[in-house]
Amino acid sequence: MAEKIDPWEQGAVKDYRRLMKEFGIEPFSSVLPKVPQPSLYMRRGVIFGQRDFGKIAERMKNRQPFVMLTGLMPSGKFHLGHKMVADEFIYLQERGAKVYICVADIEAYNMRDKGLKELRETAIEEYLLNYIALGLKPKNCDFYFQSERSKDAEKSNAYYRMVGIISRRVTMNEMKAIYGELTPGKMISVFTQVADILHPQLAQFEGKMPTVVPVGVDQDPHIKLARDIAAKLNKTGDFKFEAPSATYHEFMKGLKGGKMSSSDPLSYIALTDDPKTVKAKIMKYAFSGGKDSIEEHRKHGGDTKVDVSYQYLYSQFEEDDKKMAKIKADYESGRMLSGELKQLLCEKLEKFLTEHQEKREKARDQVHKFIGRD
Amino acid sequence: MAEKIDPWEQGAVKDYRRLMKEFGIEPFSSVLPKVPQPSLYMRRGVIFGQRDFGKIAERMKNRQPFVMLTGLMPSGKFHLGHKMVADEFIYLQERGAKVYICVADIEAYNMRDKGLKELRETAIEEYLLNYIALGLKPKNCDFYFQSERSKDAEKSNAYYRMVGIISRRVTMNEMKAIYGELTPGKMISVFTQVADILHPQLAQFEGKMPTVVPVGVDQDPHIKLARDIAAKLNKTGDFKFEAPSATYHEFMKGLKGGKMSSSDPLSYIALTDDPKTVKAKIMKYAFSGGKDSIEEHRKHGGDTKVDVSYQYLYSQFEEDDKKMAKIKADYESGRMLSGELKQLLCEKLEKFLTEHQEKREKARDQVHKFIGRD
Repeated sequence: MAEKIDPWEQGAVKDYRRLMKEFGIEPFSSVLPKVPQPSLYMRRGVIFGQRDFGKIAERMKNRQPFVMLTGLMPSGKFHLGHKMVADEFIYLQERGAKVYICVADIEAYNMRDKGLKELRETAIEEYLLNYIALGLKPKNCDFYFQSERSKDAEKSNAYYRMVGIISRRVTMNEMKAIYGELTPGKMISVFTQVADILHPQLAQFEGKMPTVVPVGVDQDPHIKLARDIAAKLNKTGDFKFEAPSATYHEFMKGLKGGKMSSSDPLSYIALTDDPKTVKAKIMKYAFSGGKDSIEEHRKHGGDTKVDVSYQYLYSQFEEDDKKMAKIKADYESGRMLSGELKQLLCEKLEKFLTEHQEKREKARDQVHKFIGRD
Repeated sequence: MAEKIDPWEQGAVKDYRRLMKEFGIEPFSSVLPKVPQPSLYMRRGVIFGQRDFGKIAERMKNRQPFVMLTGLMPSGKFHLGHKMVADEFIYLQERGAKVYICVADIEAYNMRDKGLKELRETAIEEYLLNYIALGLKPKNCDFYFQSERSKDAEKSNAYYRMVGIISRRVTMNEMKAIYGELTPGKMISVFTQVADILHPQLAQFEGKMPTVVPVGVDQDPHIKLARDIAAKLNKTGDFKFEAPSATYHEFMKGLKGGKMSSSDPLSYIALTDDPKTVKAKIMKYAFSGGKDSIEEHRKHGGDTKVDVSYQYLYSQFEEDDKKMAKIKADYESGRMLSGELKQLLCEKLEKFLTEHQEKREKARDQVHKFIGRD
């Protein structure tokens, strides 16, 4: 089914398939039947690939705990692309995951002209508040900063010492083969990310436990490296890690059909955007698969493979498969016009954003339950 | 004077001079007159070079606090070479230094086939107990492990986050120019050492404060890098560091005239060696500057430039300048035989080791005052 009403342009899909083969990523469809109540992203193929997700599905089925780890870079506005990842890990939290969320503030500090304090505020205002409004719960959640792992020194020490230990398990040639030429800062950032992925399994945290990391394919090198290093560390006898699992999601297209870019507010919809403004943005800028004239459109129909409004509905806002299939049929046959399709998305978005923004304001009272607890 | 009765072979001295010029290290003699009660190592030229030691001397003179940082690799036996460094930082502690001692256990873990727990025991048994017996006091001492900076999470977080921040202030080409080809592990170890040198000046520790690091010339790249990075971080406005100062000491010669090697117990005198064994070791193995026959020796005299027993007396065990000058005169004129010179060292060493080993046993009761306090 994912193929029939696939929201993404054919070219991109072909690329994803090629990448999967090259990288050794398994299709998500091969584990989908084992996942109890799969998420919309899983059902619709937005999550298209996986490594070792079978053991996570098994845990979900048996209601056994597992770890989900994700990272965020505290910069820019929280937009629909971020929402997709958040929806996914909140879904996993609801199904038993202990959720680890790492704020890569040291990396952001090194790359931007902002202090750690300002970055911390961005992480809370732009990320944490939106996560809470989307449904993240404080129970089974460890929201932490790379610059300040924990209020518990034992935990902090255990986490940071992993960076040094990990760095000895890989040669410079292996690093170059994976990442090309690297700066020293980028190298430390890679080892820190591997420590992020593996440390929830240390005795000071959860102990050995299946862990899933939801990523885009561009992050796969970190996953492979973390899996390699886990195996090498297990061999020393001092560590016991489950090889980390991963899911791979497609990148959400920008409003104008290209990439989302934080420097171009017309390329994305932020979750704090005023709903009225969003409507105007979509009507004016959303890349359309409709034809140039109504006559032509009625005759030939719209192209769902390139229509951004269609794809946003498909991937995030119209969960009902029957309704979605009807929209597809109507639009492709020309019964539905481009403006009508946009109107459908606007209605969904207006309702979502209005409710979300109320929840986000209420979420402020919850922040203390996520930060500075241990 | 240092030149007249210099304990080290001429070749080595020439090399040190060349190195100093190349590296931009200042002679220690240029600050010696400003140091109140200089140590034996300073007076005798064993400490031959310095960077920015003037501001430390100033602090000593005005009885203002300053920081001394040193590192140790927990492996092998604690020998006279280690004693030299310990004497020096204990001297500085007595003159107002807050002493930071870093156990490089992560580095040792990565290089050797030993667990962190075993390395911790070595650090205590071989290093800390000897330090305490040599006079190290718990007051104004922060003895810490790289794997576990502090029991205080704020301190640990502040220390470890420096590693990531430091890594972005240097390019791969700069690293290669300083260190040649590096493994990723070695690179992380360099940044950790820079963090070791700079972190005592963070707000969570002492705040901005002159810091001296006693090193051999081989460690100078770390000093230069730490000074460069301190300047770069000061420019961001987020940090305030005094450029770290350093002293440079000569390497102590091995018993047989070559290098000390932990794999050859006859090349060094350990502070836990049985005094009787030590006597036999010296009489049999200590490299002598004496002539082949007594007749020849009486006629031509011994060579203090190569005589290891003479050099040990000069650098560590005969503090009285007049007595030392007489030994030199007697030995070089042939009045004193090689065996007699060795006998002098044996007497000093036997007394020192016997007393030291008693103190070392008593030191066990003090360990808790150094470890796991904050």
